[in-house]
Amino acid sequence: MRKKEISSSGNISRRTLIGGALATAIMPVSNAFAKYIQVGAPVDDPTKKIGPGPGKLGKRSPFEQPVKKPSDISSRTPLQDLYSPMTPADLHFERHHAGVPAIDPAKYELLIHGMVDRPMKFTLNDLKRFPSVTRTCFLECAGNFRSGSEQMTPQDILGLTSQSEWTGVMLSTLLREVGVQPKAQWFLAEGGDAALMTRSIPVSKARDDAMIVYAQNGEAIRPEQGYPARLLLPGWEGNMNIKWLRRLEFADEPWFTREETSKYTYPVKDRIRYFSFEMDARSIITYPVFPNKVDRGWIEIHGIAWSGRGKVLKVEVSTDAGKSWSVANLQEPVLSKAHTYFRLLWYWKGEATEILSRVVDETGYTQPTLKQLAEARGTTMGGYHMNPVTAWQIRADGSILFKPETI
Amino acid sequence: MRKKEISSSGNISRRTLIGGALATAIMPVSNAFAKYIQVGAPVDDPTKKIGPGPGKLGKRSPFEQPVKKPSDISSRTPLQDLYSPMTPADLHFERHHAGVPAIDPAKYELLIHGMVDRPMKFTLNDLKRFPSVTRTCFLECAGNFRSGSEQMTPQDILGLTSQSEWTGVMLSTLLREVGVQPKAQWFLAEGGDAALMTRSIPVSKARDDAMIVYAQNGEAIRPEQGYPARLLLPGWEGNMNIKWLRRLEFADEPWFTREETSKYTYPVKDRIRYFSFEMDARSIITYPVFPNKVDRGWIEIHGIAWSGRGKVLKVEVSTDAGKSWSVANLQEPVLSKAHTYFRLLWYWKGEATEILSRVVDETGYTQPTLKQLAEARGTTMGGYHMNPVTAWQIRADGSILFKPETI
Repeated sequence: MRKKEISSSGNISRRTLIGGALATAIMPVSNAFAKYIQVGAPVDDPTKKIGPGPGKLGKRSPFEQPVKKPSDISSRTPLQDLYSPMTPADLHFERHHAGVPAIDPAKYELLIHGMVDRPMKFTLNDLKRFPSVTRTCFLECAGNFRSGSEQMTPQDILGLTSQSEWTGVMLSTLLREVGVQPKAQWFLAEGGDAALMTRSIPVSKARDDAMIVYAQNGEAIRPEQGYPARLLLPGWEGNMNIKWLRRLEFADEPWFTREETSKYTYPVKDRIRYFSFEMDARSIITYPVFPNKVDRGWIEIHGIAWSGRGKVLKVEVSTDAGKSWSVANLQEPVLSKAHTYFRLLWYWKGEATEILSRVVDETGYTQPTLKQLAEARGTTMGGYHMNPVTAWQIRADGSILFKPETI
Repeated sequence: MRKKEISSSGNISRRTLIGGALATAIMPVSNAFAKYIQVGAPVDDPTKKIGPGPGKLGKRSPFEQPVKKPSDISSRTPLQDLYSPMTPADLHFERHHAGVPAIDPAKYELLIHGMVDRPMKFTLNDLKRFPSVTRTCFLECAGNFRSGSEQMTPQDILGLTSQSEWTGVMLSTLLREVGVQPKAQWFLAEGGDAALMTRSIPVSKARDDAMIVYAQNGEAIRPEQGYPARLLLPGWEGNMNIKWLRRLEFADEPWFTREETSKYTYPVKDRIRYFSFEMDARSIITYPVFPNKVDRGWIEIHGIAWSGRGKVLKVEVSTDAGKSWSVANLQEPVLSKAHTYFRLLWYWKGEATEILSRVVDETGYTQPTLKQLAEARGTTMGGYHMNPVTAWQIRADGSILFKPETI
């Protein structure tokens, strides 16, 4: 570890140090300790100035101002500024199709109808009276991948994924309440935004782990994530997790909405793939990355890995451009369909190299390279469900660049 | 469950509903569905207005504005506004002794000295180069209990406890780095605030689970919680978790600082108790509480339970003023020294009653009543480490009041 050893002439007793100004007068001191006991503190010494008192809301340090990078349709989580799998709610990525609607929770209603025995409307308070469940999972946009420049951060490349702790009611609970009929195989989820965002979802997901959630990271869900309630389909592509959810309709076949024909479908060789539900396993190193600069010596490489199909089984990291791989440590608890933090200690000797990560999930699926994706799908890959291994170039001066790849 | 059944004359096909305005002209519709298909939407219909686009930072809904309640020395987490164990960082309670210092992270240094082989200073970047660890735990002020009025919320009574996911370096890692000497039995932790807050801590805690943390809920630690780095002593009283940590000194005996003599000590019968490290097991119902008003029918009672000595083993809830008790469901994963969410479904028939909770932790300790605390400690209990069972009065009209107790 890099550290500064201080001169150890300073065998001053602890009582002297605590004595403060009085001690200054009677004890010789080493330079290393001087700042703790000198009379006349520097004006920038925060120990000599009473700070502001407790407030109604905490604020970030002026030295830490992470922000999302907004475009006209999305904004991206600053993954490189985060130290753990959790995404603060105000840094959760945004992707919406007609802006964020302003919904009065007192007027909110969720209609459930179609092939059900008892069509019903639920107010927000109604939803909160059902047994509630809390679970942590990631949400990722189906189109989460950008490339093209060496000067890209994890946020630029892959910032359309975020993780929250969600609380709400299991959709299976509501299914029993309305009496979904056996012939119902699909349901339509409709959002209350100006896009009336709609997607068709198999009823099997509703019986499995789908939820209607009204809380995020402990508090009421944020407007950008669907206030006052959204659909949560753990592990499935982001756009299906309908925000500002206002209607569920049950039927025997899918609807083929706009988001199932013109969007969120993509060519796979000579065919069009649609209804791509699960997000494939993926990982990215989030430190060290562009624009960090590193020093020789020990570096803790860290990043996130996840899979829409279950738990992360293993993350491997290479520090020699893919020639050899080491198994990274995973932060416990490893949760299903959740960002999982990985870490690997690496002693960097100053050589130019590349560092990269790949994940294996509990189904045995291994994150592919871009070349493998092209082999499987053809070269017109369409931009959805792109999860290639991502590499960073370490240069001999310690500067770091993204390594954009092309087929 | 309370819900509104809609008239089920509305056996309109899904294609009609999706058809929108056109469908209006050709199909008779039930009133219940009318609002989805009427021509000329109400001006307050958010589906008819494009909302604001993605932003640099998300914001709370204007309908959800939880705030801490600040006094001159502390501010309190609004526990009744939370739906899970996690506390958003800006709602973490604050208790400081000379305000929040403004610390430039580039100038930050942590000095470790005293009975060590290699006294050292560490910059913030130095600390981040060590192997890092993430853990979730609560922090609670030793003086966390207020009573006296029926019109008190959980925030008023018990708002000086919060939970975060913390990331940093194990203190045991730094101990190996500096070579702590075998004769060192205690260390002094000193804060960089204008109070120079100092506490003496046994080295055994440093070898166990103490950490130096620089991140909270995924991002850099907030100024009010010790930016850029604080001591974390999982399960131990809040004031010992020194914020804005700038110095650790190792020695063979404790210092008996101001915070160990005039503060954070308390009478137990005819003696003074000091060095009360662990926070005792505790629980509180956070819904329904004052000033909620409930309707007859199913109510999900929920709340938080925790122990400074390990995991929560069991939470029992009584809905008949303590005559009988039911075991509540605990939200998984149950973590050691962490707020644990509990839930119990209750069918309220409209009778006046009291609801209360009590926790048993994995050491077998059961949360006491105020009467039991008085029997154990005498009636001059001093105000620290008060963890009595807390009851709420449900009145026949559905209104709820806190039940303050006196000895």
